[in-house]
Amino acid sequence: MIDVKELYQKLDTYMNQTITLQGWIRNIRKQKDFGFIDFSDGTCFNHIQLVYDKENKCFDQINKLHIGAAITVTGTVKASIGAGQSFEMIIEDLVVEGDCPEDYPLQPKRHTREFLREIAYLRPRTNLFQAVFRIRSVAAHAIHTYFQEHGYLYVHTPLITTADCEGSDQMFKITSFNMDRIPTIDGHADMSKDLFGKQAFITGTGQLHGETFAMAFKKIYTFGPTFRTENSNTKTHANEFWMIEPEIAFCHLDGLMDIEEEMLKYIVNYVLEKCAEEIAFCDQYVENGLKEKLTKLVNSKFTRITHHEVIDILKKADMDFEFTPDYEEDIAKEHEKYITEYFNGPVFITNWPKDIKAWYMKTNEDGKTVAAVDLEVPGAGELMGGSEREADYQKLINRAHEMNVDTDTVDWFCNLRRYGGCYHSGFGMGFERLLIYLTGVENIRDVIPYPRTPKNCDF
Amino acid sequence: MIDVKELYQKLDTYMNQTITLQGWIRNIRKQKDFGFIDFSDGTCFNHIQLVYDKENKCFDQINKLHIGAAITVTGTVKASIGAGQSFEMIIEDLVVEGDCPEDYPLQPKRHTREFLREIAYLRPRTNLFQAVFRIRSVAAHAIHTYFQEHGYLYVHTPLITTADCEGSDQMFKITSFNMDRIPTIDGHADMSKDLFGKQAFITGTGQLHGETFAMAFKKIYTFGPTFRTENSNTKTHANEFWMIEPEIAFCHLDGLMDIEEEMLKYIVNYVLEKCAEEIAFCDQYVENGLKEKLTKLVNSKFTRITHHEVIDILKKADMDFEFTPDYEEDIAKEHEKYITEYFNGPVFITNWPKDIKAWYMKTNEDGKTVAAVDLEVPGAGELMGGSEREADYQKLINRAHEMNVDTDTVDWFCNLRRYGGCYHSGFGMGFERLLIYLTGVENIRDVIPYPRTPKNCDF
Repeated sequence: MIDVKELYQKLDTYMNQTITLQGWIRNIRKQKDFGFIDFSDGTCFNHIQLVYDKENKCFDQINKLHIGAAITVTGTVKASIGAGQSFEMIIEDLVVEGDCPEDYPLQPKRHTREFLREIAYLRPRTNLFQAVFRIRSVAAHAIHTYFQEHGYLYVHTPLITTADCEGSDQMFKITSFNMDRIPTIDGHADMSKDLFGKQAFITGTGQLHGETFAMAFKKIYTFGPTFRTENSNTKTHANEFWMIEPEIAFCHLDGLMDIEEEMLKYIVNYVLEKCAEEIAFCDQYVENGLKEKLTKLVNSKFTRITHHEVIDILKKADMDFEFTPDYEEDIAKEHEKYITEYFNGPVFITNWPKDIKAWYMKTNEDGKTVAAVDLEVPGAGELMGGSEREADYQKLINRAHEMNVDTDTVDWFCNLRRYGGCYHSGFGMGFERLLIYLTGVENIRDVIPYPRTPKNCDF
Repeated sequence: MIDVKELYQKLDTYMNQTITLQGWIRNIRKQKDFGFIDFSDGTCFNHIQLVYDKENKCFDQINKLHIGAAITVTGTVKASIGAGQSFEMIIEDLVVEGDCPEDYPLQPKRHTREFLREIAYLRPRTNLFQAVFRIRSVAAHAIHTYFQEHGYLYVHTPLITTADCEGSDQMFKITSFNMDRIPTIDGHADMSKDLFGKQAFITGTGQLHGETFAMAFKKIYTFGPTFRTENSNTKTHANEFWMIEPEIAFCHLDGLMDIEEEMLKYIVNYVLEKCAEEIAFCDQYVENGLKEKLTKLVNSKFTRITHHEVIDILKKADMDFEFTPDYEEDIAKEHEKYITEYFNGPVFITNWPKDIKAWYMKTNEDGKTVAAVDLEVPGAGELMGGSEREADYQKLINRAHEMNVDTDTVDWFCNLRRYGGCYHSGFGMGFERLLIYLTGVENIRDVIPYPRTPKNCDF
């Protein structure tokens, strides 16, 4: 019993040998005296063609099988005389593990991605999702491998949290109460009676907890699910998504950009190497030029430019922007697009106006900007966002008050600045945004196994 | 600028060289004319001794420093003449990045673990938690590496779910509503108005979703957080913990046990290799004989025995058990302990009475037991639990009804048996239970960065 992956890897060994495979019939062409099965076991992107003819003792049995059926099949690997493949397997014996009815929703024709979302539990069996979810798995391992090889500690920051300094409206509340019978006190829900003795949330970031570990292990990263309550139906928003959040002690903004650039190139390279078939498929059927785009990124030097310089360029641009570029404001999607095309590659934009960024970012000496950096990538927009953190206790507290942040639930986070604090930086990368970039798939719903979006939590 | 880890790895290169390190003062012994700093940067378990004397231009500055301070230090690496270390660093220059006050809670003395839990954000700086959380990180990577090298797909199963077939009492409900103003209809909470249009939960398992991917990729695993509302204050229960849940198509119970055994030995071996200092520390200060226990496991053959045979052995045992062993019942902790000691190693117990196990497990031909398997490990009890899954659609539905499971929200899961289903098996391993075994630390609160237990969600 071997996997199809192994068969492809050691084809010389298995050629002209009798082997047994287990997997699924992706397609079957039945002729009067012979037939072909398109067979896959999901262990690699490649399928294998199984051949049978009338001489075969299982001929009648095979001819009754349906697309989708699970089979155990024994046969001989032979060089193929047909077009389209270099080898095939001549069936000698076949056991049906589980047949599939005629009304199986996944027939071998072109289905829309919208339809496939409605059968989310079957879509991993299609070529597109075999490619996308294999890339997802391999990219995840690339990330772990990069950080582990570079001496980072992987931290499982908590998902359940009572720190609501980022604004609790954006977080899901959790409760062990029966929703019909929430105890009240003075007309308010009495969360002191709930399991944790107070209102708890599921988190939108692991950064605050991550920083506490960076102050002990120097270099750490998180990689886990995060949540937003955003009632937003766009191609790039989901209510549940995975984030990578590295945090590095003794690191300024320039060092942070070095890490971001090196990490991204490492991941892209790793995926290009380990998912050659999957990338080739996406290049052909999803985004023409994908492989070239990725190869180019690995070999490029990322541009580094300030927000102020970006606005200068946008103002000088011979373009009719919907939103007027402004030194005090965030940039719009159209601006991101212009800038990455202007530099023809990835662009780090630094030193953003402080009032549009988070309270814990380090204020620059100009008093107007913060040491923040966004990485803009051609075709995918903002891929990472990071900053140097405010390392001065009093400045941090002052900034929190200016921005109406309640620091009561995060006094421990602020205290890091009192107990052997140091300059440090970190960034966040949305894993799904990376996958959109790596696969060319446009909609976040198609890079998540079971996407959670407003009114959509059916599986 | 190098990490202490690199210094230890390439000591020959750096000996007698001037280098710069960045990290924290773990201890400082100030004498009249000289002094010693115990320095660590968290990149490895080993510290380094820094030496300074009155000739040093920074002498007065250093003598004012406190334990916990963050420093950048330049000096020469020299063979040590003192006892306790083979080399040390003679300080030439020092910059204080962040001092630490006299009342720093983490003074270099023996603190109780209970006290350290109260300063959870500082405890990663102690030797014990440097060891525990490094082992946690390395073990996590060992798990990913094992599965990726063996052709498994890593699946991010969703955390938010509406499938409540396991009993929604055990799951946290989530909502985007203000808890004070939950809309009602006919006196009940009207969850149809919430973000997902129905009541959603955070999940207790990724298995159901994992199976859908095993039917497409053959071999998959999950590794992510899971949640229980259990109001239980024991050493082994937490409300948030991480689980690994592999699922393998075309796999019976014997094959599953092979995988469990191989995987566990791989992880233990990996940790023994990569965390030698951390394991040595735990061996000395946490569990005497830890290293021997782990080494023995790697070289042992796990026993395989049925639940019925276990009860036979327990009934014959010359022991006064608190709970009487029973062929129809689960076994108690005292029984687990007896059995692992009886076989002097890990024991797979198979074929459990069906009524104490989950509804989706395959019923054996005797009609009384299910093809389930628990792995019992000396000192840690049940480490993994798995089963062959019921692959027959009608049998699965019948069993669900017998056990009062509402299959309405998991029709897709049941349908897997109709659409090219096949015999398949899977197991779950609680990551924290593995860590308790790997470190010798007894309380689950001490192997989780920020443990969530009843009334405890303070950081």
